[in-house]
Amino acid sequence: MAGRRPTLLLTMGDPAGIGPEILVRTLVHRSLRREAELVPVGDPDVLERAARLARVPLRFAPVAPEDFETGDLPAAPRGAVRLIRATTDAWGSFSPGVPSAASGLAAARAIEVAAGLALRRRANAIITAPISKQALQAAGYPYPGHTEFLGALAGAPETRMLFTGGRWRILLATVHVALRRVSETLTVDSVVRTLEYAALALRNFRWGGSKEVAVLGVNPHAGEGGLFGDDESRVLAPAIEAARARGIRVEGPYPADTFFARHAGRRDLGVVVAMYHDQGLIPAKMGGIGGAANVTLGLPYVRSSVDHGTAFERAWKGGARRPDPAGLVMAARVGIDLARRAGRAPLEWAWR
Amino acid sequence: MAGRRPTLLLTMGDPAGIGPEILVRTLVHRSLRREAELVPVGDPDVLERAARLARVPLRFAPVAPEDFETGDLPAAPRGAVRLIRATTDAWGSFSPGVPSAASGLAAARAIEVAAGLALRRRANAIITAPISKQALQAAGYPYPGHTEFLGALAGAPETRMLFTGGRWRILLATVHVALRRVSETLTVDSVVRTLEYAALALRNFRWGGSKEVAVLGVNPHAGEGGLFGDDESRVLAPAIEAARARGIRVEGPYPADTFFARHAGRRDLGVVVAMYHDQGLIPAKMGGIGGAANVTLGLPYVRSSVDHGTAFERAWKGGARRPDPAGLVMAARVGIDLARRAGRAPLEWAWR
Repeated sequence: MAGRRPTLLLTMGDPAGIGPEILVRTLVHRSLRREAELVPVGDPDVLERAARLARVPLRFAPVAPEDFETGDLPAAPRGAVRLIRATTDAWGSFSPGVPSAASGLAAARAIEVAAGLALRRRANAIITAPISKQALQAAGYPYPGHTEFLGALAGAPETRMLFTGGRWRILLATVHVALRRVSETLTVDSVVRTLEYAALALRNFRWGGSKEVAVLGVNPHAGEGGLFGDDESRVLAPAIEAARARGIRVEGPYPADTFFARHAGRRDLGVVVAMYHDQGLIPAKMGGIGGAANVTLGLPYVRSSVDHGTAFERAWKGGARRPDPAGLVMAARVGIDLARRAGRAPLEWAWR
Repeated sequence: MAGRRPTLLLTMGDPAGIGPEILVRTLVHRSLRREAELVPVGDPDVLERAARLARVPLRFAPVAPEDFETGDLPAAPRGAVRLIRATTDAWGSFSPGVPSAASGLAAARAIEVAAGLALRRRANAIITAPISKQALQAAGYPYPGHTEFLGALAGAPETRMLFTGGRWRILLATVHVALRRVSETLTVDSVVRTLEYAALALRNFRWGGSKEVAVLGVNPHAGEGGLFGDDESRVLAPAIEAARARGIRVEGPYPADTFFARHAGRRDLGVVVAMYHDQGLIPAKMGGIGGAANVTLGLPYVRSSVDHGTAFERAWKGGARRPDPAGLVMAARVGIDLARRAGRAPLEWAWR
């Protein structure tokens, strides 16, 4: 396992979507290649076709996952990029631009192979191109997304989503929950656990263990003293109290609307905890595509992801409307940074 | 009433807060003074003290509201700024920095005087400095804020909040509602009416009657086809349909998190309709204090407001930590622009 120059596995995503095209363009990114060993995981034929379509000068040297794991590898031809073969001949099984059970299966296989290698410490980080929930489920994988899939493969009891790479580090207390159910989903225990994740992220990624964790309110004006909702007094205040008793520096709850303008210049701020999906992701994504990467907390290895979807309607068209790899480049950049910061040991997500 | 150079009434806000200080600093803003007649409304003694504290070279010529209304005014001394006297001797009745019934009463009187003059077309716009709900209610005014107070004074059946001045024009479908009640508060009828307000704002303010009104979803990923909530299919889709049938150009519902990055460059976008307070105000306020002004739709005149509160803890201190007038300057700038665009006739808020 690499010390200073980490090994990143980049999964191709749903092959019917834009994943293969943005992956091949990310693989030739000079500064990323200098800083890390970038190893694509997927279907050789699919990725070769993507490279030709994207006019990217890449030659692949496919290897079997077990050979990559043992490191018992023949020298790759000069200039060739090693590719971990998760599937073969997937190309004929699906239609470009159309999600299907076959495209979902090929995407899932790449994830399984990458997760296995990362769990056995053969890589420092997994960077994932976008997948389709529908295709994944059609292929028999009952996961709403990467986060839950990777959590299951790692045997992780739970996970959290954190967005970083831009101006803010934003951790979500709830994710894919209908707005009307956010309030009942937030409990004192779940919020305390989220605050532990925030503190563990500060510690694992050496962002500054003594930095503050800032909590946003659930309601307008953080409830305005109970006038517009009681989640702040009923759930957030006791959760903040409990987290402080465990030695975590927490402040808030803050009115969410003015928080980002008021705290923009602070150097002592570690992580912002948003209570629900759009409260965290509107500010995280204001900077544009590639403005932030999605990092999974709760896995023993680093995992980061693009902040956008499969964009089937733009996939495999080439030409002027070819997909922008900025999101995957940002995910790789964040993955490299976090892998270096995390060091060699598996990440620990129990608060002690 | 002024044609090209509109008359703006600037209410002092709660006199125990930062309102008087930011008001006097706004009154000496050169480009604002060139573009409009700026007339403060409040307590002469309070505003004179604020001018001295802020070291602003202002002399006031107080006039009674009824004299201002008839226009039967003696010439003001050279260099003096006319001030509409809403109260006298309020200074001794409250403690600077502490909201009270007395400070609420003085704030309310300035609002009543300004609203009366604007309703009788003696001014084009009201610009309001911040007030305290608690102080207002202690003084016996049962309004949660300016918007409802001004609505009642105008006999307006309903009002809406729109934020503008920065990159986006954002209209709120619900405002001061607990997050858990947003979903039940949104009905097809209320959303249709909000879309009419959006279209009427485009028309009244000549922003481009054929521009699009974009609707944000309530739930993560706009519900992801019903996986995370059904507000999009149950309420938003029929409301959008009904608004289109009335001739309004509407699109959406869009996932809120990616909307702002994806639609940043569009010139055909008129108004973005956010479903709840923080969904609209996080993006509206990301630009910082003074990045947007709050405009009330539903009144016969233009009204804009600062996007921040009374900041009692910073009021009447002077020196280096004196309050920043940027929010009130932006509110005045927006008020001038909208007053010019609106023209002479009272604004109409019935969709025909």
